[in-house]
Amino acid sequence: MELKDIGEREAIKIMAELYGSVNLDDCATIDAGNEFFLITTDMVNEKTHFPRGAAPYQIGWFVVAINLSDIAAKGGIPVGVTLSVGLPANEDVDFIREFSRGADDCAKKFGTEIIGGDTKEVNSVTICGTAIGRVKKSIFMPRKGCHPGDVVCVTGELGMAGAALKALEAGNDEFADKILMVNPRVREGIAAASVHGVTASMDISDGLASSLYQLMEINGMGFSINAEGIPVHEMAELQGNGIELALYYGGDYELLFTVPPDKFGDVRKAVMGTGCRLTAVGEVIDNKAVMLVEDGREKIMENRGYEHFLGEKLFK
Amino acid sequence: MELKDIGEREAIKIMAELYGSVNLDDCATIDAGNEFFLITTDMVNEKTHFPRGAAPYQIGWFVVAINLSDIAAKGGIPVGVTLSVGLPANEDVDFIREFSRGADDCAKKFGTEIIGGDTKEVNSVTICGTAIGRVKKSIFMPRKGCHPGDVVCVTGELGMAGAALKALEAGNDEFADKILMVNPRVREGIAAASVHGVTASMDISDGLASSLYQLMEINGMGFSINAEGIPVHEMAELQGNGIELALYYGGDYELLFTVPPDKFGDVRKAVMGTGCRLTAVGEVIDNKAVMLVEDGREKIMENRGYEHFLGEKLFK
Repeated sequence: MELKDIGEREAIKIMAELYGSVNLDDCATIDAGNEFFLITTDMVNEKTHFPRGAAPYQIGWFVVAINLSDIAAKGGIPVGVTLSVGLPANEDVDFIREFSRGADDCAKKFGTEIIGGDTKEVNSVTICGTAIGRVKKSIFMPRKGCHPGDVVCVTGELGMAGAALKALEAGNDEFADKILMVNPRVREGIAAASVHGVTASMDISDGLASSLYQLMEINGMGFSINAEGIPVHEMAELQGNGIELALYYGGDYELLFTVPPDKFGDVRKAVMGTGCRLTAVGEVIDNKAVMLVEDGREKIMENRGYEHFLGEKLFK
Repeated sequence: MELKDIGEREAIKIMAELYGSVNLDDCATIDAGNEFFLITTDMVNEKTHFPRGAAPYQIGWFVVAINLSDIAAKGGIPVGVTLSVGLPANEDVDFIREFSRGADDCAKKFGTEIIGGDTKEVNSVTICGTAIGRVKKSIFMPRKGCHPGDVVCVTGELGMAGAALKALEAGNDEFADKILMVNPRVREGIAAASVHGVTASMDISDGLASSLYQLMEINGMGFSINAEGIPVHEMAELQGNGIELALYYGGDYELLFTVPPDKFGDVRKAVMGTGCRLTAVGEVIDNKAVMLVEDGREKIMENRGYEHFLGEKLFK
C-alpha cells in the first residue's frame, strides 16, 4: 500500500501509534515546572506549498508564521524559531538572504527571533521550521477538552487564502502574498488563554471543516455550525462562494476555540482587546458528527480540505 | 552567485549574520532559570545522506542519532525529539512503519522519546529531526572557550564511517549500517560536562579536520594535532589509510573536547566510566592555524571534509 492510498492524517496516526508518546496536539509539550515548553515543527516545500510567483522573502515569512500559529493555538509565548533550509546547489545565494530577511521579520514582528539554522543540499526547495514556546500549565489550551453546549468560535475571517488560491488558479500571480504572508494569531492566543475559559483549541490550517473533524475524533463529540454565522472574508464573498472557501480551503491560520457559554463574553473581550474579531459560529453537540445549518436546514458538513499524499495539488 | 560557489558553511554564516541571534554552536539555547533548554535541528535527504542499501529502520535511527549527538556535545540530557517526514506519494506505507520503529528505538536507547511528528508530500525522501535537551547553565559545554595549552581530546575512535563509505564505493552494500546506526555520545557528554572541566566542545560530523577548523574560527586560536595519537578505528586501519579517513571523512559523530591539563585526568575518568575511551590528540596553540605533526614533522592540516553544495557527493 502506498501513502497516496491512505493520506497524510492516516500516516500520522500510524506513526503516533508506534511512538506511543505523541499527543496529537498542535505542539509537543515538555514539562518545565509550572510551565510547558511547546515544540512544533512544520516542513514546507516547493511541490505542495509555494504558489507561482512566491518570493523568497514571502517563503521565509510563511515558514516562521505557520509554526508560530501552532504555538498561538496553545496560548504560548514564542521564545525562538530554528530553520533547516534544504536547497538545490544551483540556487542563487540571494535566495538565502531574502528568505532569511522574511523569516527574521516575521519572528521579530511576533516577539521572538531565529535562534538556529542549518542548510542542506536537496533537489527542490524544502524548509523545516521549528518553533519553541512556553505557557503556564494552568492556561495551556489543548485540542481535547470541550463539552456539549460549549460555544464554537473563530478568530478573524475565513476564506481569504482560498480566494487567493482561486485567483492564482485563474492566472493572477499577484495573490501569492495573500497566501504566504500569514498573520499568526499569537497575541490573540495568549489573550484567550489568559481568561482560563477555552476548553479546546487548534489552528485552522487545512480549512474549518477539516479542523472540526479532527477535533471531533479527538474529543469523541461533534459540532453544529451555523453557516450564516461564519465570518467570511470579503475577498471570498466577492467570489460568490464564500462559505465553500471558508469551510474547505486551507491556509487561513485563524484559531478555532470552544468555550463554555458563561465564559464566552470574557474570552471574546480578551481577544478583541488585541484588535481581532472573535465570532461564535456554532456549538459542541453530544453526537459524533459535524453538522452544518444552512438556510434553516441541517445537513452533515463534508469532511474535505487539503491533505497531503492524496493526489491533490494545493497549487497547480 | 550560486550556493555551489560558496558552500554550506559560508551559507550558514550569511544567515547567522542576518539573524544576529544565532550562536553558531551545535544547539540553540533558551534561558530557563538555572538551566538552558537546548534545541538542534538537522535535515537529511536521499540525495546526500542515504547510502545505497539503506533500510528505512536505519534511516529513522540515523535522523534521531545525529540530532542527539548535538545535544550530547553540549552535555545535555535529551528530553524529546520531533520529526518532520517528507515523502513521495508513491512511497510504501511500510516505509513509515519501519522508519518510525528505528527512530523510536534510537530515542529510547538514549533515554528519550519521539514527542511529535508531521508528514508532508515531497519529491524525494527528506526528513527533518529536532532534538530538545536540557543542561544546567554551570556545566554547559560551548564551542567557544578554549585556551592555549588546553588538551585536545576525542571520544571513541575515528575513521569507521569513512572506511564504510570506501567499502560502499567499492560495491559492498552491507556497510550501510556502519554509517547509519550512529551511536551518539549522550552518556559521555553528560559525564564530561559533570566534571566542569571542558572548555570547548563539538561533535565531529564532517571529519576531525573540519571540526578543528570550525573551532579555530570561533575561538580565534589554533591546534597542534599529533597524528600518531589519533585513535583510528580498526576498519580504517585495515584499509591502510587510517589517518586520512579519521581526519577528512565525516560520519563518526564522536565528541571533540578541549580541557585544561590539570582537569584532563578527571574528564577522562568520567568519560571512561561510561565505557568509552577518551584520547588526547594534541593541544590548543596561540596561533590561528591547525597543525598536524606526523613522523616528527609539523605541517598545516588540510581544511577539507564533507560540505554541502560544493559538488561533492557523500554517497555515489
